[in-house]
Amino acid sequence: MSTLFLRTLREDPADAEVPSHKLLVRAGYVRRVAPGVYSWLPLGLRVLRAVENIVREEMNAIGGQEISLPALLPRDPYEVTGRWNEYGDALFRLQDRKGNDMLLGPTHEELFALLVRGEYSSYKDLPVTLYQIQTKYRDEERPRAGILRGREFVMKDSYSFDLDQDGAAASYQAHRGAYQAIFDRLGVKYVIVKATSGAMGGSASEEFLADSEVGEDTYVRSIETGYAANVEAVITPVPDAIAIEGQPAAQVYETGSTPTIATLVDWANATLDRTVTSADTLKNILVKVRAPGKDWQIMGIGIPGDRDVDMKRLEASLEPAEVALLDDADFAKTPELVRGYIGPAGVKNAGGTYLVDPRVVSGTRWITGADEQGKHVVDLVAGRDFEPDGTIEAAEVRDGDLTPDGTGTLLSAKGIEIGHIFQLGTKYTDAFEVDVLGETGKPVRLIQGSYGVGVSRLVAVIAEQCHDDKGLRWPKSVTPYDVHLVIAGKDAAVVEGAEKLAADLDAAGLSVLIDDRKASPGVKFKDAELLGMPAVVVVGRGFAGGTVEIRDRFAGTAEEVPVAEAVAILSAR
Amino acid sequence: MSTLFLRTLREDPADAEVPSHKLLVRAGYVRRVAPGVYSWLPLGLRVLRAVENIVREEMNAIGGQEISLPALLPRDPYEVTGRWNEYGDALFRLQDRKGNDMLLGPTHEELFALLVRGEYSSYKDLPVTLYQIQTKYRDEERPRAGILRGREFVMKDSYSFDLDQDGAAASYQAHRGAYQAIFDRLGVKYVIVKATSGAMGGSASEEFLADSEVGEDTYVRSIETGYAANVEAVITPVPDAIAIEGQPAAQVYETGSTPTIATLVDWANATLDRTVTSADTLKNILVKVRAPGKDWQIMGIGIPGDRDVDMKRLEASLEPAEVALLDDADFAKTPELVRGYIGPAGVKNAGGTYLVDPRVVSGTRWITGADEQGKHVVDLVAGRDFEPDGTIEAAEVRDGDLTPDGTGTLLSAKGIEIGHIFQLGTKYTDAFEVDVLGETGKPVRLIQGSYGVGVSRLVAVIAEQCHDDKGLRWPKSVTPYDVHLVIAGKDAAVVEGAEKLAADLDAAGLSVLIDDRKASPGVKFKDAELLGMPAVVVVGRGFAGGTVEIRDRFAGTAEEVPVAEAVAILSAR
Repeated sequence: MSTLFLRTLREDPADAEVPSHKLLVRAGYVRRVAPGVYSWLPLGLRVLRAVENIVREEMNAIGGQEISLPALLPRDPYEVTGRWNEYGDALFRLQDRKGNDMLLGPTHEELFALLVRGEYSSYKDLPVTLYQIQTKYRDEERPRAGILRGREFVMKDSYSFDLDQDGAAASYQAHRGAYQAIFDRLGVKYVIVKATSGAMGGSASEEFLADSEVGEDTYVRSIETGYAANVEAVITPVPDAIAIEGQPAAQVYETGSTPTIATLVDWANATLDRTVTSADTLKNILVKVRAPGKDWQIMGIGIPGDRDVDMKRLEASLEPAEVALLDDADFAKTPELVRGYIGPAGVKNAGGTYLVDPRVVSGTRWITGADEQGKHVVDLVAGRDFEPDGTIEAAEVRDGDLTPDGTGTLLSAKGIEIGHIFQLGTKYTDAFEVDVLGETGKPVRLIQGSYGVGVSRLVAVIAEQCHDDKGLRWPKSVTPYDVHLVIAGKDAAVVEGAEKLAADLDAAGLSVLIDDRKASPGVKFKDAELLGMPAVVVVGRGFAGGTVEIRDRFAGTAEEVPVAEAVAILSAR
Repeated sequence: MSTLFLRTLREDPADAEVPSHKLLVRAGYVRRVAPGVYSWLPLGLRVLRAVENIVREEMNAIGGQEISLPALLPRDPYEVTGRWNEYGDALFRLQDRKGNDMLLGPTHEELFALLVRGEYSSYKDLPVTLYQIQTKYRDEERPRAGILRGREFVMKDSYSFDLDQDGAAASYQAHRGAYQAIFDRLGVKYVIVKATSGAMGGSASEEFLADSEVGEDTYVRSIETGYAANVEAVITPVPDAIAIEGQPAAQVYETGSTPTIATLVDWANATLDRTVTSADTLKNILVKVRAPGKDWQIMGIGIPGDRDVDMKRLEASLEPAEVALLDDADFAKTPELVRGYIGPAGVKNAGGTYLVDPRVVSGTRWITGADEQGKHVVDLVAGRDFEPDGTIEAAEVRDGDLTPDGTGTLLSAKGIEIGHIFQLGTKYTDAFEVDVLGETGKPVRLIQGSYGVGVSRLVAVIAEQCHDDKGLRWPKSVTPYDVHLVIAGKDAAVVEGAEKLAADLDAAGLSVLIDDRKASPGVKFKDAELLGMPAVVVVGRGFAGGTVEIRDRFAGTAEEVPVAEAVAILSAR
C-alpha cells in the first residue's frame, strides 16, 4: 500500500447518493471522469476482472464461444432494424471524417446476426452461442449512482442461434441456468422476474433483479405463489363476465361541472339512490399512437376510475408504436371528444380505437362520460351499451392486486437489473435474412436469443448488498485481495514477520495486500474496513508472543492465533 | 473444430493487400465490420489475449499499476492542451444528448495527468507508473491492412510521473527494457529508432519498428554504427565552416528565364567558367507557418538545390506550428517575393524568417535568386552576403547520407511501429498544473512520460513476420493453441485414441485444438497449415501400430513417434 495508486477519502463525494457510489469512490476503487463515465483504479479493476472471469467461466460452461466485436459501428445494420431511430437520444451517434454515420454500440443483436449469416450456411453448424465481454455505450438521460448506471459500462452480451423453437428454448434455459450460477457465485441476492422485451423485440423474456433499496426497477412479487414480474409485464386476471339481463337501462344525467372523477363521484352520491365510489366510474384516457412508419391514430383507453394509467405499462403494451397524450390542438381538431365528459361512443365517433382495462368485462356497469358538456351516463353496461375493440394492460398495478392466476396478491419491490434473457424469435434474423440450408434442403430462418449481464454494474450491486457503515465487504469470489495484512508496529521483527507471513500466504495461493505505510495502526484499521477485504490480519503487539490477529470483515469478529497457524486458518476459510 | 465458430476461406478477401490481412481473414481470426473496424473471432481473440498478457506481465514487472480509463471522454482536458484541434480529422468527436462535446480517446496523456493530480499531493507518493490495456480510436485517413492500421484498436498506454529529470530518465529506461522484453517474448524482429515526438510534445523519444516490407514507417539506419532513426529525427552532420576571406565577390547576372534549378544549372554551365551542379545552387522554398494561437508568418527555407524539401521532416521541425506552401494569393500580396528568382534578401524584405539547411555553413558560396525577374546572383557567400536566422532540418534524407556523428552512412528501411516511448517533460503537467509538495516544502511540477504498445497491431505484425505461403505460423508465446490435433481416420480406436491423447496433452498443460470434423484428411491438413499452430499431431494411419505423426509448422518437418512418447516430446518443445 505504500506504493499502491490509492488514496482513500474521508468525505463522501458531493454527487453520491447511494452507499455503493459513496464507498467505491471513498475507497479509491473508481473515479469520475464525466457524468456516467468512470475510471477504474487498481482495486476496482481487480474486482471488475474477477466478475468478468466468473461470467466467462459460466458462459464457457454452457458452450458459449467468446469473441469480440467493435464498439464503433456503422449505421446501416441499425437502420435496417429501425433501432438507429428507435433508440432516440440514448444512442451515441457520430460521423467519421468522410461523413459516414456511425454509432457506439449499446447492444449488438444486429452485428451478431450478420456475423452468423456471414460464416454459417448449413443446419449442421447450429446451434451456436457467441458472447463477448465488452465496453458498451448508452447516453442515459440520468446517469446515476456512479457505476450503477453509467454511460460507458462493461456488459457481457451473448446471442444464441437455433434451428427451431425447441432449440431456442433450450439455449434460453441454458443461459438462465448460467446466470443463476453466476449470481450465486457472486453472492448476489436476486429475483427472476417476467419481463416485457422492451426495445429488443421478441417474445419470452425474464429479468434478473438484485434486491436493493436503491434499485430503479420496480417489480411486483407474490410471497404466496413465488410469482415475480416487472410491472410492465404484469397480466391482470380477468374477472368472470356478469349477466347482462336484468340490469337497469343506461340513463344520461345532467351532472353539471363534473370534469374529474372526484366531482363525478360526489355528484353521484348526492343524486343516485346508492353509494358510489370511484371504482364504479369508467375513466377514458385519450392518447395518440403512431406505429412505425404510420400516422398518428387516436386511441381511447377505459379504465376503472379508481386507478391511474401507468404510462410505462401503456408504452410497453403498445410497443414498438410511439404514444403521447392528446394535446389542446388535437382536441381542437376533434369536436367529438368533449374533455371531461368523454364516453366510449365519443372515442369511436372521433374515429379512434377504444380499448379497456381487462377488468371491464361484459356485464360490468359504469358511470362515464356522455360525450356532451356537463353530461354523464349511468349504468352503461359493457357488452350491451358499448363494445370495446379489445383490452390493454395500461392501468397501474397496486399492492394487493391479484397475481395473474388469481391465487396470490402482489407486493411491489425494488431491484437493480443485473441480467436479462430474451427469446428474440426471428426479429433480427428476418431483418437480415439469416438462413441456413436445412436438413431437407430448404432454407431455415434462424431463431435468435439475446442475453445480457451488467458486468461493471455488478461491482456496484455487490458493493450495495455487501457493506456496512464502516465500508465495503467483498465476498471471497470477487475480493481484490484475499487478505489485508496490516503491519501494526515499527520493530524490524514485526515488519520481517509480516513480510514472511505475506510470502507464506502468497505461496498458499492467497493474494495479499500489505499495509506497509508509515501510518498509525488506527488509520490502517479504518482503511482496512473501508477497503473491505474479507480477512484482515494484524501483525503487531502480539507478534513477540507468537500470535497475530485475524479479523473477519463480515462477522466483525477478531481472534489471536499462533503465527504458525495463520496460513492454515486463512486458507481454510 | 466441429463446433468452433470458424470458417476458413479459400480466397483472399478482395480488399486485402498484405499477407497478414489475407491470412488472418482467410483463417477466420478476424472479420471486417467497417473500414478499419474489425471483429475478433475465437482464435483471433486468443492471440490478442496472449499478447495482452505478455504486455501486462512485463508492465507489472517494472512496477506498472494497471487501471482502466474510459474511452468516451469530455472535450475540456483536450481543449486545455490544444489537442482537441491539433488532432484534426483523426479525432472521433461526438456530442451527448445535452450537446456536450465529447471524443473517443486516441491516447490519454491529459486524463492520466489529471488523475495523478487528483490523487497525489506529496513527493513521497512519487514515482508512479500507471498503465491500461484499452480500446482506442483514431479516425485514420487510410485505414489499411486489416488490423494493422485500424480505427478501433487495442493499445497498452502507460504514463510515468517523476519528481525530477533523473527519475523521468529512469522511468523511460525501465519502459525501454520492458518493451524489449515484450517484443523478444513475442518473437518479433524489430529495431529501436530515434524519433521525433510528433503531436505528443516533449523531448526524448524512440520508436520500436518491426521489420516489415509492408511497413508504412520509413526509417534510416547505418549498418556500420548501429544508428537508427525515424526520417523525421535524422540530424544532419554540420560541415566545418569555410574561410570567407579570399572568396570572389557576389555578382548578379541576367539569367533569362531560369525559374527552375535545372534551367539555372544549364545557364551556369553555359556562362560561368566552371562546372556547376545543382548542389552549387541554393533553392529557397517559401512557406507560411502558424504557431498555435498566432497568425500566419512567412518563412523561407534555403537548401542545396540537389535536394528536395521533405514536408514530413519540415512539419516535424516546426511542430506544433502548422505549415503550408505559399499560394498564388500569398505571392500576390508579397511583391518582394519574385517567384523563381527568390534570394535570402527577398525573404527578409518580405518580413519573413530565413532558415537554412545545416549544410549551408558560413563560407559556403551559392548560386541563388537575386529577387528580380530573370536575375540570379553567383558567389553569394553565407556569413558574408547573407545571414540566416538559423538552421532547420527540412531537406530529404538520402541513402548514403552521413550519420549524425559522421562515421557511418544511412540506408533507408521500412518498418511497422509497434511501440513508442516518450519523455514528455512537463507539457501536460504544466497544462494542468500537476504539482506535489516537495521535500523542501515547495511545490514540484511533475515530469511525465508516455509509452505505447500497439497490442492489436502486434497480432498482425506477428502474422506478417511469421507466415509462409501455406498460412500462419504462430510463435509458442501467442499461439491460440499449443497443439493442433488432426483426427485422420474414422475408426473408433483412432477417435478414442485422439481424444485420450488430447486429454493427456491438456493434463500436461498444453492447450489442444482437435479437428474432429467430418472432413477429409487433406482438407484438415490444409486448414491446419492455414491456422498455424506450431505443432500439428496427426492421429491416423500409424495409430494401429502405436504411432502418431508430429509436424513442426515452422521447420516443415514431420516424424512418426510412439503414442506413449507424444506428450513428452510436445511438452519438451
